[in-house]
Amino acid sequence: MNKFEEKTIQTEMIFEGKVVKLQVDDIELPDGKKAKREIIKHPGAVAILALTNEGRIVLVEQYRKALERSIIEIPAGKLEKGEGPEATARRELEEETGYVCQSMKLLQSFYTSPGFADELVYLYLAEGLTQKEERLMPDEDEFVELMEVTLEEAEKMIKDQRIHDAKTAYAIQYLQLQKALTE
Amino acid sequence: MNKFEEKTIQTEMIFEGKVVKLQVDDIELPDGKKAKREIIKHPGAVAILALTNEGRIVLVEQYRKALERSIIEIPAGKLEKGEGPEATARRELEEETGYVCQSMKLLQSFYTSPGFADELVYLYLAEGLTQKEERLMPDEDEFVELMEVTLEEAEKMIKDQRIHDAKTAYAIQYLQLQKALTE
Repeated sequence: MNKFEEKTIQTEMIFEGKVVKLQVDDIELPDGKKAKREIIKHPGAVAILALTNEGRIVLVEQYRKALERSIIEIPAGKLEKGEGPEATARRELEEETGYVCQSMKLLQSFYTSPGFADELVYLYLAEGLTQKEERLMPDEDEFVELMEVTLEEAEKMIKDQRIHDAKTAYAIQYLQLQKALTE
Repeated sequence: MNKFEEKTIQTEMIFEGKVVKLQVDDIELPDGKKAKREIIKHPGAVAILALTNEGRIVLVEQYRKALERSIIEIPAGKLEKGEGPEATARRELEEETGYVCQSMKLLQSFYTSPGFADELVYLYLAEGLTQKEERLMPDEDEFVELMEVTLEEAEKMIKDQRIHDAKTAYAIQYLQLQKALTE
């Protein structure tokens, strides 16, 4: 796991924000030469592929300032300090959609942008959904619109790029694969 | 596409590096309240699912300083200014693996981390591979090891997390889906 290791000579912390940190590392390459690496530190996140009892996929539309547009994604959120990924997944699902679930199963974890960031996303499958009567409020600066779509509708939303997000594309492809394997 | 738009009041540029920029935006939420957004600007990237004439998947192992470990990914690289994504894909494939290809087809594009970054990855399928006699050198600070694996081997590498990267997991699942649909 340490093939071609890049040894840290010095780390300069440039920015420590609420969500990300940015540091620049001076490194030594395997051949002894020097280089710099710009690195984003992120707390990690969860994403939830939640299926209703009718087999519909729960999606949320929200504005993403980094993109200057709104996109449609599966529910997701950052890990909080001291909170495990499954607890985060249950909290985010309830906050963003009002759903609680009987079963929350880890499908996969992956780094989203290993070239410059350490963000690790845990992708869960949530089933046995029940809508709570009193919905928890999302974070106060978060506006999301809930929608529930069939797999066919989700595939169309990927084609027209209303869904344009790696974790959501992965989750929908996962469902396509499960369907193909059982037909 | 502008649902729940977050209007920019002010942008503070914190860092302008070789790979990423970091800015903090003061924004106005749809309800008139104020908030801050930490945003990473990235030039975008390509990733290439390259299949040899024997149907093996071309992978590269490299050290990822952000993760402090080496991981195995499909070949990938950043867009250069003025270079279109397909030209980038052909250049990166040749630089990292020595392969040129007859067919380079766009499968999908997606944002990798829309919560904090604007990185868009274009995923290509490369077929009709020929190994060049003289291999272009990768960037001088880039050390990569080439490997070629079957789909079954790639699936195992995902299970044991030697492959632990969203775009690569998506690409392998794409092949699993194509196989399931034709069996």
